[in-house]
Amino acid sequence: MNKGSSTITNLTYGGRIYRLIERLYPICRSITGDGIRKTLHIFQDFIPLVIHEIETGTKVFDWTVPDEWNISDAWIKNSKGEKVIDFNDSNLHVLNYSIPVDKKVSLGELKEHLYTLPDQPDLIPYRTSYYQEKWGFCMSHNKLKTLQDEIYHVKVDSTLEEGSLSYGELFIKGKSNDEVLISCHICHPSLANDNLSGVSVALHLAKALLNEELRYSYRFLFIPGTIGSITWLARNEDKLGNIRYGLVLSCLGDSGSLTFKKSRSGDREIDKIGSLIMNSREDEGASVREFLPYGYDERQYCSPGINLPVGCLTRTPFGEFPEYHTSADNPGFMSEESLEDSLQALKEFITCFEGNQTYMNKKPKCEPNLGKRGLYDSTGGRARTSESRMALLWILNQADGSHSLVDIARKSGIDFDIVRKAAEDLRGAGLLEERPENDKRSI
Amino acid sequence: MNKGSSTITNLTYGGRIYRLIERLYPICRSITGDGIRKTLHIFQDFIPLVIHEIETGTKVFDWTVPDEWNISDAWIKNSKGEKVIDFNDSNLHVLNYSIPVDKKVSLGELKEHLYTLPDQPDLIPYRTSYYQEKWGFCMSHNKLKTLQDEIYHVKVDSTLEEGSLSYGELFIKGKSNDEVLISCHICHPSLANDNLSGVSVALHLAKALLNEELRYSYRFLFIPGTIGSITWLARNEDKLGNIRYGLVLSCLGDSGSLTFKKSRSGDREIDKIGSLIMNSREDEGASVREFLPYGYDERQYCSPGINLPVGCLTRTPFGEFPEYHTSADNPGFMSEESLEDSLQALKEFITCFEGNQTYMNKKPKCEPNLGKRGLYDSTGGRARTSESRMALLWILNQADGSHSLVDIARKSGIDFDIVRKAAEDLRGAGLLEERPENDKRSI
Amino acid sequence: MNKGSSTITNLTYGGRIYRLIERLYPICRSITGDGIRKTLHIFQDFIPLVIHEIETGTKVFDWTVPDEWNISDAWIKNSKGEKVIDFNDSNLHVLNYSIPVDKKVSLGELKEHLYTLPDQPDLIPYRTSYYQEKWGFCMSHNKLKTLQDEIYHVKVDSTLEEGSLSYGELFIKGKSNDEVLISCHICHPSLANDNLSGVSVALHLAKALLNEELRYSYRFLFIPGTIGSITWLARNEDKLGNIRYGLVLSCLGDSGSLTFKKSRSGDREIDKIGSLIMNSREDEGASVREFLPYGYDERQYCSPGINLPVGCLTRTPFGEFPEYHTSADNPGFMSEESLEDSLQALKEFITCFEGNQTYMNKKPKCEPNLGKRGLYDSTGGRARTSESRMALLWILNQADGSHSLVDIARKSGIDFDIVRKAAEDLRGAGLLEERPENDKRSI
Repeated sequence: MNKGSSTITNLTYGGRIYRLIERLYPICRSITGDGIRKTLHIFQDFIPLVIHEIETGTKVFDWTVPDEWNISDAWIKNSKGEKVIDFNDSNLHVLNYSIPVDKKVSLGELKEHLYTLPDQPDLIPYRTSYYQEKWGFCMSHNKLKTLQDEIYHVKVDSTLEEGSLSYGELFIKGKSNDEVLISCHICHPSLANDNLSGVSVALHLAKALLNEELRYSYRFLFIPGTIGSITWLARNEDKLGNIRYGLVLSCLGDSGSLTFKKSRSGDREIDKIGSLIMNSREDEGASVREFLPYGYDERQYCSPGINLPVGCLTRTPFGEFPEYHTSADNPGFMSEESLEDSLQALKEFITCFEGNQTYMNKKPKCEPNLGKRGLYDSTGGRARTSESRMALLWILNQADGSHSLVDIARKSGIDFDIVRKAAEDLRGAGLLEERPENDKRSI
Repeated sequence: MNKGSSTITNLTYGGRIYRLIERLYPICRSITGDGIRKTLHIFQDFIPLVIHEIETGTKVFDWTVPDEWNISDAWIKNSKGEKVIDFNDSNLHVLNYSIPVDKKVSLGELKEHLYTLPDQPDLIPYRTSYYQEKWGFCMSHNKLKTLQDEIYHVKVDSTLEEGSLSYGELFIKGKSNDEVLISCHICHPSLANDNLSGVSVALHLAKALLNEELRYSYRFLFIPGTIGSITWLARNEDKLGNIRYGLVLSCLGDSGSLTFKKSRSGDREIDKIGSLIMNSREDEGASVREFLPYGYDERQYCSPGINLPVGCLTRTPFGEFPEYHTSADNPGFMSEESLEDSLQALKEFITCFEGNQTYMNKKPKCEPNLGKRGLYDSTGGRARTSESRMALLWILNQADGSHSLVDIARKSGIDFDIVRKAAEDLRGAGLLEERPENDKRSI
Repeated sequence: MNKGSSTITNLTYGGRIYRLIERLYPICRSITGDGIRKTLHIFQDFIPLVIHEIETGTKVFDWTVPDEWNISDAWIKNSKGEKVIDFNDSNLHVLNYSIPVDKKVSLGELKEHLYTLPDQPDLIPYRTSYYQEKWGFCMSHNKLKTLQDEIYHVKVDSTLEEGSLSYGELFIKGKSNDEVLISCHICHPSLANDNLSGVSVALHLAKALLNEELRYSYRFLFIPGTIGSITWLARNEDKLGNIRYGLVLSCLGDSGSLTFKKSRSGDREIDKIGSLIMNSREDEGASVREFLPYGYDERQYCSPGINLPVGCLTRTPFGEFPEYHTSADNPGFMSEESLEDSLQALKEFITCFEGNQTYMNKKPKCEPNLGKRGLYDSTGGRARTSESRMALLWILNQADGSHSLVDIARKSGIDFDIVRKAAEDLRGAGLLEERPENDKRSI
């Protein structure tokens, strides 16, 4: 990738997404605090994001919005006063949400507050302690081995005080009040794939949709993981009934193949769409996974009392690439091609969301005469017919109100775009009618 | 096959079916007209067929019965007055339903009305234009290449006028008003496998059933494709509720293996029976296919507003043998053995239709004492028991009103005939009663 | 196996089970009579078994309790007065339930009353004639071939008179009236695997459960095959609604792998549990089979009008080992290791029965905060979490009243014990409540 020679205007989408990742990478984010606010303000350069601030102490279901954390500096100095660890080198060096500390400790005591990766001795791990008050540092295991048995001065210049939890929300109104939820976590500090990639792809998708005439409304959430989705869900229970499709986005910049993780039920329209798109990308290694109650905010969206039709789209899933939650998950680990391809796949999801319908055949007794409506070749006798004509026949046969166009694409093996186009031709000819939108049998 | 030495009376069934194909082959049929009438009259030599005539202009669902087409002659003469194409050589030479024409045309203009098969240059294709007024000729591509750039005289001596659509119907009354529908298309001119084979096998099956005591009524339809089934369905909507099983027959004379295509639902009794019979012929390569809204009149019987339990039985499916819809689909392509085997398979379907029941075990608490009823070997201790005794146990165990004998044959892997016989023994011993016939849960 | 040096007290369970098989082996049992009573009295050395006596002539569903059979001696003497067959050598020599006989017969007449195994010429077969009055002898085919053409004196000193059918029942009361049924047939004479193995394993299981605090009540039946289970079912119809799980035990001592045969429905909790345990023993070759209406008393428990959730646990299934129902099925065919392993597998079934619950998540909206309840590691960021923590998440996600812990173990692939323990932790934290016990949706 030769990114040096390109300028913003002639960048590919992959290039633009990459540039945004680079811009966001240095900021020290957490589940609350100014890092997240700074990040959300940058998003406002691209989209008209609404930033919400939820006060510390607010009850959200079983949880409470925590104190706000901010940090200005942190280091460990040896007995000579040399910084052996410096927050300014990498914000991963500090245990995220570390309480403030300023004291002298022996190597033995210090070690109780250090996190390393003995199996990946060059890398700094990413560790957090949001809900238990601890101080700590993360460093490479090789660095740890160089530490002498002496007295160290440790300092974390952080605050943990009443404040608020911030998240960003963009609602794009479509024709219908029914909506599509796109959610990504923004709480990680200097980690690129997890999840500046998901955030940055989502933001470019949102930007593209702002210019479209949309059937559904689209809601983009840029939230801290876990507490953010819980907070949003607790404050928006009245909206949940409108959500027809949802996707959690993460890890969209590595060079692995796309992976769609199904929703809790496993058989909802979002699951069928995910499967359809992954199947069409089987040659590239795209795959589908069953639901697992671990991962990202789909854990909350798919909890039994919420149970939304929300899947998760990633390339290599979390924890399955060695760079995961380490200093090696940096912009250099990202590929412009992968970012571009992830955005492209998301556009395919949008095409399915917008184009999926459940129709009723208005002439269900025998095939209607397509020839007289100009929809059928007048010369008969050939062994094969075109995919677009087969799509007409499939739709007419299956349009009994219990099969969506996505179902029909799956059953027939015909590309969704061809199916959707055929459905439009049939509707144009007065042969189909939509099942009422409020009949949500097949969501 | 040495057919020359046999006479009708000592012919095998395969031989008799073959002879009928030979007799019907020369007739120029179409979806209406005298060719079809002549064909139906020949059928009346075998079975008491009722011939229906439906007037041009009759509305049948979304369709209208078209003008009647008849043809007496057609040719193309070159500038020397030599016939280069002659309807009398092959009725495939004329675009079926061609409007009359009598004019002189350049080679260029002629070519716009010619149909050939460049990939099968020796063969004449079969082409139709029922619903758009066109004239045209079909010929081998090799013949086309010999045509000089000169003026040709084209003549199609056809009529396209008000008249009627003809079809044949044979209703064989059984004990029950519930019925089995056997349908085949009779509209093709000189084409043997598609569908003189299906027609001729069906006719011999009907003839055989005329002499049987039947549980169900049987309705045989000999109809023009598409418009014929639409016409019959539109005129007989009140009868559709009685149809328990149905089969469309076509392509039953080639040397390929049997293929059963499931009904639209895919899980009705006809589908189970088709699967059972194909499984029992797995060694011969018999196979089962899912429903597809393309093919023969099952497209109409399985339209969403009709949705009958109608499958389709063929040997090699339409379009999958190279002779399909060409002059190579002639009697020489037929095999007496295949025709005989197809009839045999149909008799197996009839055995299943007639013998399939859903029973209730009248002694459902524990096994009844079969020994005291003479149904069980009195000496115990052997590791294995006979299939017929296993059939007794399977039926007793499954006879709770939700499993048909076909279900039981499938589940147990025991031949349907053995299962049916065992059920008769159990009924004879007073251990089974039929579920009421009007409880159609399992059709 | 060096059993000679061990004493009862330091025997393994396998050794104890083996010793009991040896003790029971010589007794001539049948479906009625003193052999069965003697056997049941021996059981009373181990467990407080209740012995029931059901009078000859009692109607039990479609059957009648037969006359009681007892035998004191039987032999065949040749013309020199030498015993060529002696009941005292093997009780298999007599056709079980043979009527008394004392007469002189030619070899020809004798042969009509002899049973041999030509394919296993060294072995004596086991044959019965419970419901047809016959006399007969079983012998090795080799012995048969030595018989000279002379006059033989045959004597069966048996009685077939009014009496009763005996069976043993042990009811262990647990907290719930809902119960687990364990059934094994005790009617076979000198046959070890079929079924002294099942009987002896069941008895040691019962003995172990007597000392436990149990959630469910447990009912052990030691019954003659077929007529015994029919008799018990006919007399206890009012109890059947309480049976949540059931197992028929047989053939548990051979060296083959464990085999679980599903109940009639195939998808009840007992079937899921059997599958779970067999899957966990896949490496040892354990397997699951579909229901078949042949085998042991599951034929009765799974008849359509009874339809209990009863599976069958064996090692090699009946009829699939060459020793089956022959004199080769003797204690030497048994392996202490297999007997011990069978008992161990049964304990795993008990663990599942006792621990299986269907819970409701009391905080179903988003994940509850496990950290504040001490159930979750406070330091975040690691790629993997422990199986026990995954079990917490799986349970919370699936606990909507439609998934049992067994379902969750199957879905998650996590060991049932870990799942059960996690559920206890969650219940301890007030996060789960049981679905009411009388809601038997998932039995």
